[in-house]
Amino acid sequence: MTGGHVTEMLERYRVLAIDALLAGVPSDGPHYLYDLVSEYPRRWGKGLRAALCLAACRAFGGTPSVGLNAAVTVELFHNAFLIHDDIQDESEQRRGAQTLHGEYGVGVALNVGNMTNLLALQRLAANRRALGSGIAWRLFEETQLMLRHSLEGQAIEVGWIRDNVCDLDADDYYRMCLKKTSWYTCIYPCRTGILVATGQQDAIDVLDRYGWYLGAAFQIQDDALNLVGDFARYGKEIAGDLWEGKRTLILIDFMRRCTGDERERLLEFLRRTRTQRTAAEVRWLHGRLLAYDCVESARRSARDLAAAAHREGRRALGPAAETEDGRFLLGLPEYVVERSR
Amino acid sequence: MTGGHVTEMLERYRVLAIDALLAGVPSDGPHYLYDLVSEYPRRWGKGLRAALCLAACRAFGGTPSVGLNAAVTVELFHNAFLIHDDIQDESEQRRGAQTLHGEYGVGVALNVGNMTNLLALQRLAANRRALGSGIAWRLFEETQLMLRHSLEGQAIEVGWIRDNVCDLDADDYYRMCLKKTSWYTCIYPCRTGILVATGQQDAIDVLDRYGWYLGAAFQIQDDALNLVGDFARYGKEIAGDLWEGKRTLILIDFMRRCTGDERERLLEFLRRTRTQRTAAEVRWLHGRLLAYDCVESARRSARDLAAAAHREGRRALGPAAETEDGRFLLGLPEYVVERSR
Repeated sequence: MTGGHVTEMLERYRVLAIDALLAGVPSDGPHYLYDLVSEYPRRWGKGLRAALCLAACRAFGGTPSVGLNAAVTVELFHNAFLIHDDIQDESEQRRGAQTLHGEYGVGVALNVGNMTNLLALQRLAANRRALGSGIAWRLFEETQLMLRHSLEGQAIEVGWIRDNVCDLDADDYYRMCLKKTSWYTCIYPCRTGILVATGQQDAIDVLDRYGWYLGAAFQIQDDALNLVGDFARYGKEIAGDLWEGKRTLILIDFMRRCTGDERERLLEFLRRTRTQRTAAEVRWLHGRLLAYDCVESARRSARDLAAAAHREGRRALGPAAETEDGRFLLGLPEYVVERSR
Repeated sequence: MTGGHVTEMLERYRVLAIDALLAGVPSDGPHYLYDLVSEYPRRWGKGLRAALCLAACRAFGGTPSVGLNAAVTVELFHNAFLIHDDIQDESEQRRGAQTLHGEYGVGVALNVGNMTNLLALQRLAANRRALGSGIAWRLFEETQLMLRHSLEGQAIEVGWIRDNVCDLDADDYYRMCLKKTSWYTCIYPCRTGILVATGQQDAIDVLDRYGWYLGAAFQIQDDALNLVGDFARYGKEIAGDLWEGKRTLILIDFMRRCTGDERERLLEFLRRTRTQRTAAEVRWLHGRLLAYDCVESARRSARDLAAAAHREGRRALGPAAETEDGRFLLGLPEYVVERSR
């Protein structure tokens, strides 16, 4: 499948899920709540998670309508995660505009994130009537597992920054990434898509390896775009990860390859809090990461992971690899590592 | 039932629920997550919500063990709410020590609050095996309803501060209070306690009025303690509500009774952000609230609400009013308005 077909199908599934999401947000209620729940979903996003869920559902014999609640659920969890993550990282920009807490304050934004999580749970519960109690409980269990991985992944990353952990290697990064990104971005949507399609509660793990590699490739490209992307397309402040001291694969690579003097300077930089860091230091670090080719090196790893995702996906899909959705799922690995936003 | 018996039973149920809560927190995992989930529950709290749930359960024929998961669930939601609420209000003290975000930063604390919510959901799901799928789903629905009310109530309060709303009356306060406090503090624990005891899905609302009045009385006394309490017992910074610009019944009463000059000065104070307010202004407002007898006036309202809670509780409990748990439930209204912490 060519890149054009991937983006076309992404767009089709995105529109389907986001329209259903927005239609399900209550229109009545206090100010600063439901109106702001719709704020991030209305800004352009890729809709990757909803598309993975719907494509996995169709590839395993389901219809889009049987997977729609699950697709909306994961997009709602994703948007709640973005709102909370922006507060935690003190980010300024999201999807090309000011972050929610930047515009409305932390008090409002945290609450809106919590309401977005609640709407996700409500959407999940709607599967009971549509699919029966057994499948609905299994979806609830899958959701608890996904949330546990995501929150543990988030705790690992936040802990590294807080404790100024500097002796990390690529494996540490990949373990964090599996929990923080791959599970909710790729593995969970595939598992729930297969579950609602087949009604088989035990055979939902066939795309796990595909999702794990795809999520890691996705996260590395996200880290790269944070450093070399175009704000107009990427939609977040450039080099925000450096201001935050995030332990990306790119930074971990630099730590292991730089000179003793550079390491001293880097540790001095990482020891500070975000507000203590200066633009000059961020520029220096940015320049070093490029000079050492750390961004390109990480992107090579991402391309290897994308190839692994493709291989695992083909094996898992079997004959379904030739369907429209199978080809879309197999085109996604290349898409996530070549995307500019 | 005398006050001594109320505090004895509160303590007995608190120990039962908090021990079960702490035993259910995973011991393995990343730093800054499960260890911090236990932080607020380990500090002394009243355990009011767990006790209401267990007492309602026993008063309606259940055993403590059948209600334990529901009691632990509401205490977990409560602790998650405290963690997030402290971030939203920029509070400094909780239960006699530094707030979680004050000690570990917003990034860590927000995540710990989310994990506490997840553990509550997991505990809720544990009812499926113990009580069957039908009751477990009904508990899940009750939980969704409770979370909706709580988040809407929180949005109303945060919105009043953000929009500097000053034309409020007592009815506005009571409506906000029903959602923000009564539902999750009193109504939800009673409903879930009755549900697990009886297995009757339709008759769980008999203590709603009791819980609504009890919650309002509880919140007003909380607002009063914030102004006239003893920090060593109350455990939060005194006058924190004034620093935050909270629209308590006490402040609303003052707005309606003060002179034109005082009102001007109050509006000027409320127009500022928390960090722009000065200790001298807070002291002035504190003094005015006492001089106008606004605290005592609000406490009289709280005592009236407590009497109404007692009356409604007696009617709802019927013959169960004479049981140990019935007498405890009927002793709680007086307890919540006379407590010093």
